[in-house]
Amino acid sequence: MNAREVEFEGHLIDSMILPKALDAILDLEGEFEILEFRIGKKKEDHSYARLLVVGRDEQHLQKILHVLHRIGAKIPEAEEVELKPAPADKVLPENFYVTTNHPTFVNYKGKWLQVEGIGMDKVIAIRNGKAVCLFLNEVKKGDLIVVGEKGVRVVPPERPRKVSHFQFMGGSVSSERPTEELIEIIAEEIINLKRNGGRVAVVAGPAIDHTGARNALAGMIRDGYIDLLLSGNALAVHDIELSIFGTSLGMDLRTGRPVPGGNRHHLYTISKVIAAGGIRKAVEAGIIKDGIMYECVKNNIPFILAGSIRDDGPLPEVITDVMVAKKAMREALQNIDMVIMLATMLHSIAVGNLLPSTVKTICVDINPATVTKLMDRGTAQAIGVVTDVGLFVPQLYEKLKEKEREKREIMEE
Amino acid sequence: MNAREVEFEGHLIDSMILPKALDAILDLEGEFEILEFRIGKKKEDHSYARLLVVGRDEQHLQKILHVLHRIGAKIPEAEEVELKPAPADKVLPENFYVTTNHPTFVNYKGKWLQVEGIGMDKVIAIRNGKAVCLFLNEVKKGDLIVVGEKGVRVVPPERPRKVSHFQFMGGSVSSERPTEELIEIIAEEIINLKRNGGRVAVVAGPAIDHTGARNALAGMIRDGYIDLLLSGNALAVHDIELSIFGTSLGMDLRTGRPVPGGNRHHLYTISKVIAAGGIRKAVEAGIIKDGIMYECVKNNIPFILAGSIRDDGPLPEVITDVMVAKKAMREALQNIDMVIMLATMLHSIAVGNLLPSTVKTICVDINPATVTKLMDRGTAQAIGVVTDVGLFVPQLYEKLKEKEREKREIMEE
Amino acid sequence: MNAREVEFEGHLIDSMILPKALDAILDLEGEFEILEFRIGKKKEDHSYARLLVVGRDEQHLQKILHVLHRIGAKIPEAEEVELKPAPADKVLPENFYVTTNHPTFVNYKGKWLQVEGIGMDKVIAIRNGKAVCLFLNEVKKGDLIVVGEKGVRVVPPERPRKVSHFQFMGGSVSSERPTEELIEIIAEEIINLKRNGGRVAVVAGPAIDHTGARNALAGMIRDGYIDLLLSGNALAVHDIELSIFGTSLGMDLRTGRPVPGGNRHHLYTISKVIAAGGIRKAVEAGIIKDGIMYECVKNNIPFILAGSIRDDGPLPEVITDVMVAKKAMREALQNIDMVIMLATMLHSIAVGNLLPSTVKTICVDINPATVTKLMDRGTAQAIGVVTDVGLFVPQLYEKLKEKEREKREIMEE
Amino acid sequence: MNAREVEFEGHLIDSMILPKALDAILDLEGEFEILEFRIGKKKEDHSYARLLVVGRDEQHLQKILHVLHRIGAKIPEAEEVELKPAPADKVLPENFYVTTNHPTFVNYKGKWLQVEGIGMDKVIAIRNGKAVCLFLNEVKKGDLIVVGEKGVRVVPPERPRKVSHFQFMGGSVSSERPTEELIEIIAEEIINLKRNGGRVAVVAGPAIDHTGARNALAGMIRDGYIDLLLSGNALAVHDIELSIFGTSLGMDLRTGRPVPGGNRHHLYTISKVIAAGGIRKAVEAGIIKDGIMYECVKNNIPFILAGSIRDDGPLPEVITDVMVAKKAMREALQNIDMVIMLATMLHSIAVGNLLPSTVKTICVDINPATVTKLMDRGTAQAIGVVTDVGLFVPQLYEKLKEKEREKREIMEE
Repeated sequence: MNAREVEFEGHLIDSMILPKALDAILDLEGEFEILEFRIGKKKEDHSYARLLVVGRDEQHLQKILHVLHRIGAKIPEAEEVELKPAPADKVLPENFYVTTNHPTFVNYKGKWLQVEGIGMDKVIAIRNGKAVCLFLNEVKKGDLIVVGEKGVRVVPPERPRKVSHFQFMGGSVSSERPTEELIEIIAEEIINLKRNGGRVAVVAGPAIDHTGARNALAGMIRDGYIDLLLSGNALAVHDIELSIFGTSLGMDLRTGRPVPGGNRHHLYTISKVIAAGGIRKAVEAGIIKDGIMYECVKNNIPFILAGSIRDDGPLPEVITDVMVAKKAMREALQNIDMVIMLATMLHSIAVGNLLPSTVKTICVDINPATVTKLMDRGTAQAIGVVTDVGLFVPQLYEKLKEKEREKREIMEE
Repeated sequence: MNAREVEFEGHLIDSMILPKALDAILDLEGEFEILEFRIGKKKEDHSYARLLVVGRDEQHLQKILHVLHRIGAKIPEAEEVELKPAPADKVLPENFYVTTNHPTFVNYKGKWLQVEGIGMDKVIAIRNGKAVCLFLNEVKKGDLIVVGEKGVRVVPPERPRKVSHFQFMGGSVSSERPTEELIEIIAEEIINLKRNGGRVAVVAGPAIDHTGARNALAGMIRDGYIDLLLSGNALAVHDIELSIFGTSLGMDLRTGRPVPGGNRHHLYTISKVIAAGGIRKAVEAGIIKDGIMYECVKNNIPFILAGSIRDDGPLPEVITDVMVAKKAMREALQNIDMVIMLATMLHSIAVGNLLPSTVKTICVDINPATVTKLMDRGTAQAIGVVTDVGLFVPQLYEKLKEKEREKREIMEE
Repeated sequence: MNAREVEFEGHLIDSMILPKALDAILDLEGEFEILEFRIGKKKEDHSYARLLVVGRDEQHLQKILHVLHRIGAKIPEAEEVELKPAPADKVLPENFYVTTNHPTFVNYKGKWLQVEGIGMDKVIAIRNGKAVCLFLNEVKKGDLIVVGEKGVRVVPPERPRKVSHFQFMGGSVSSERPTEELIEIIAEEIINLKRNGGRVAVVAGPAIDHTGARNALAGMIRDGYIDLLLSGNALAVHDIELSIFGTSLGMDLRTGRPVPGGNRHHLYTISKVIAAGGIRKAVEAGIIKDGIMYECVKNNIPFILAGSIRDDGPLPEVITDVMVAKKAMREALQNIDMVIMLATMLHSIAVGNLLPSTVKTICVDINPATVTKLMDRGTAQAIGVVTDVGLFVPQLYEKLKEKEREKREIMEE
Repeated sequence: MNAREVEFEGHLIDSMILPKALDAILDLEGEFEILEFRIGKKKEDHSYARLLVVGRDEQHLQKILHVLHRIGAKIPEAEEVELKPAPADKVLPENFYVTTNHPTFVNYKGKWLQVEGIGMDKVIAIRNGKAVCLFLNEVKKGDLIVVGEKGVRVVPPERPRKVSHFQFMGGSVSSERPTEELIEIIAEEIINLKRNGGRVAVVAGPAIDHTGARNALAGMIRDGYIDLLLSGNALAVHDIELSIFGTSLGMDLRTGRPVPGGNRHHLYTISKVIAAGGIRKAVEAGIIKDGIMYECVKNNIPFILAGSIRDDGPLPEVITDVMVAKKAMREALQNIDMVIMLATMLHSIAVGNLLPSTVKTICVDINPATVTKLMDRGTAQAIGVVTDVGLFVPQLYEKLKEKEREKREIMEE
């Protein structure tokens, strides 16, 4: 029998931390004794618990401690983080530490360093006295890599004392919720966030073009609601096709019907943009006259188009090496406070893995399985909306404009 | 080897009748010889074809002829329909004729009678010199029932020479179509139909209430766009719950959250309506102050609420015997020209089976499998829209009002 | 400010009872003080908590207490249940108590009576000194109906100390789980349950016939795994159609293709069964020779076929009044220990509402939204499997037979 | 008014070619006159039609001719294909020809050359006297590119006179078909194809690992049913994780539960494979002991792993540049006769675009929308199966083994 003391501190009960911990111990067939437990008597008080965790043997105990670690357990005595050098480029030492998407600290030379660029399923290295989160393939020979869980502290987001409507909508995934009201609440949240200097990214798939949501998204970019666009070749191609030919994958959006010869439009579009030297130059040359990419270029909103094997062309701005694209996405997502994911599972999951759990995310898809999958991937502050982006985005844009008008009127009075 | 001559007449090629016929013969491993074929040289001309169909034996030939019959084949010599009396109530003679949902005629005593109340999967009886379509359980002992296919003519709808946008949208089921534009086209169709004295029925499920589409549907009823409502207990209960308690299944639609104690609201609602003596009386008594049922009562729009085993209560107006409900639905659907099916598979399929193929139908559901299933059930003039009714209905109502305004302005000038 | 003391007892922390309670108070913007808290130090110990709950006013406090009540809060002093007579048939007194699906007790004349036939969203009456759960429309004038929450105790199922594989699978709904292994675990659970004298009900839709699962389900009935079948007209019709014509809705299952004339088969089937006097008589007369209904009749397994407005015919055994059907279903479900729900949302939800939370349920559907909806409706011991019943049922039957063989072999050694 | 004569030849009516042509002309509001029409009187005869097609003006006429071209229309006089040089790398001449996925011929210097490597949405160049199909980004400055539609002939696959079960299953997408029987038919088709020296590719996503289908797929590779594997990083990672740790994304497949610490397994797996120098070396070093990748390496079955932005790691064999990956896929797909697509929309659509319409494809996914989307993308010989790969693949493998056994027994007799 092996045992170890662990501590928890915070809103242990209503943030479900202690229940989850005891739950986990029982699940793993471990034992526990509660050595000390001071409960915050009122809701603003913190609680404190000290547990003795018992495993059948050291290995069993370690398994239990691993799970407790990921929900915020501290080992009472502050231990120094353990580091081992990477034996070669991209090769990691045994037992390397795998990150969560929660804010994380390492106790390095007696100081708690916050890990920079935290995201799911990555590794931590100490470089120049800083703790940095790295993709596996960024590790260089000799990098000092965190191994084991000693000296690593994870701080899962607590349930806020004062909750907003926004947070309450989280959790369940269903198409049977009041869509217009959800849009109202999301619009409110975006406006509040923008007023406080927050930054919003949109991750979007080509259904934006096909379902007729493109003009509204372009409007949101023009009006300054969006600070970053993450997407792929298809969204950009069909957006530009709409500008040049008035069709999306050859379909006339006013009738929902393919136009004769329309099947050629997306390749003709790509060819024109390549000939012009890229999207930016095609906007400057007046070839692209409106739409999402146009507004990004005109308003200096950065965009990243990541390649996929489905791509035709692709457009010159598309980053065809997915690892290069991923790094560019991570870079661009620094300092983003909210991400709106629109009808794309591939890009949404990729972005989800790059985000810390403190970033608000809104996932919109007509397929409930997609929304569920995105919500399951550990983004704590996520809201899922099962609806049609073809109606959602225009309605959201209307609501944003309406709310801005109201506020202006109030201020003018 | 057995053979028989059959004829086809109409727009044989572009309405796919002849291709389907030859296709069917080949599928069934029959043989054919084209005895005569006069093709309409221009698009407004009819075509005529006379085929010799050959089967391995009489049974094989009959199978082939059965399929050809259902797509409109005529046996050249006009044969008298064959009738046999029903041996007992609900019991049918051998080889009874099973209807399609296409306009159907029987050659009775030398005259072609159109079958009244045609719908899918029913039987035909001659009663008082009229050909009537009956449910199986409506058959009475001694009823003269059509058997075999002799003397029965089916007239599948032809592809119209001049097509509208509405018809073009049919066919494919996909969430990747321009939703706002589809709504525009549907609104146009409704307005045209209403102007020409057409009648519109709505078939709706409780998602109308939960997704926040209820006020818009109530508005459409108030403004005279809807002539009949077919639904069940749940839609009515939650609609009235919204009027009395402001919640739908205990959820506050302004926040998307359950209210404490809200789980009781739908039972309290039912109890109040029962105590008042039913929906009509509860409206008159001022207990129900707004919503779908309120507008139906106030505007004398008939509604039929058919029971299901999921029902709580149910409300007094709910018809708990499903066969009684079905007959009431069939009755109410006479002279309806368009049916809008909103987020209910059960009711939509039931209604689909009661409609002739000449009635326009619009099926809206967020689940593409539901829309596909409805479209597969043989309603030729059907459009499927994969979208969220919570946004679709309010948008459709807005569009209807906008178009009416536009037309009024044009007329006033 | 109004305040009240409440108590909780049990495995408060790892069964999430106390966390849920504090969570609820905070959600509703109430206040609390923890007056006493004795935590079980080891996992087999019970815990005890006494809280002072504070609301803004009496109404606010009552809302909070209502939510706490439904998760098991006790008012320390044992209060007598409050009863009021029903003013008329089906009419309830104000503020009547609405049931959960958890085991429930009422303090009547100083004794705690367990409510009989507990199910979701019903009412409680005292009849002949017993507490019984009634549908709203079963209430008779003068029935003593429980009002308010005083003297009513709800006992939500606790998380078992020793968990089985079966319980662990609950919760998440995803198509990305190991289907064969889930089937293995479910088979094990069924066998254990049957060995201990447990009783299993199946709720099934017509996809059982269309997807080719019918023979396997018939086999499970023949071999004694199933004690009750709840379904509708369609499943029975196509099952019998398969016996008489070898088709399901006219489709030849060996080829997946419609057979010519097959569209008539289901009506011909219904007609034959009506002529024979019903399913039982048709089995006895040798008209039905195999399949699900055949095995039910031959093995004296009760079945209930509830009507719906989609039904053709219907077959004589179908109960066309849905309220009569619902009562028959409730009756039949007494003493059932497990329910397997196969590809039918309508019947599954109806059955779910009739079951106490202590009955194990397995929901199988290819549509994840259906499974999620079933899991959301409060059936605590539910497992959802997103898969194809056409493969699931045959595989489950194989697994059951295999496990029985293994056990026999072990016993024979 | 502009007019042009076009010809059609083949099984014009039952292969729907003429109906589609007339349909298209009417859709586009063109006019036609049938100048000559000789119908094959028996099913083995070819038909011939000569039409005068009339448009409002030359542009309108060209639109109509474009659509007719893609369904096989010939301009009577054999015209020489028109070629223009590419002005720069990746830049195409105006009005360049966009390919279908049907076998295509160009009339170059009086000879009809078949276009090599035909696939959807590409361009045709003449290089070294051969007509080759190129991705847009493969075009080099000076390449002679086909422009317009003159001298280009498309030959859509005809409906075979003698149809197999396999072909009949095509078309509809529904979860309500007999899954076991579909598997039987697919197994038969695979065995026939392999006996005739055919080659089968599998395109698969990571659900193969999570749903427990992996061992069966590995078995199919080992037994020689599969000649090529196209997939991504995730399938390979979790397959190898199963070999090393017995988990898939940290889930123990025997219980469907995550194992403690399992979240690290996939990164540990990737790290081990990188350290070993790749998948092949890890197999040789005995690190990977079984599974899909193991069988590919041991049996010299080529595999291509294409990168995506979701990838962790990735494994060394993953091609991170999507355009390089796409070319490798096209190369590998030469001489493939059947493609089985298992639970991956991204890879399946990418592969679909690379395949000529003559290759048989089987698309299996639990989401009907995915299957519909794949079927809509123009792969004529496609079968869609809406089912769970976790049961489908093991059952298919069993069926293949059973059929081989039967055949061996027959031959041994």
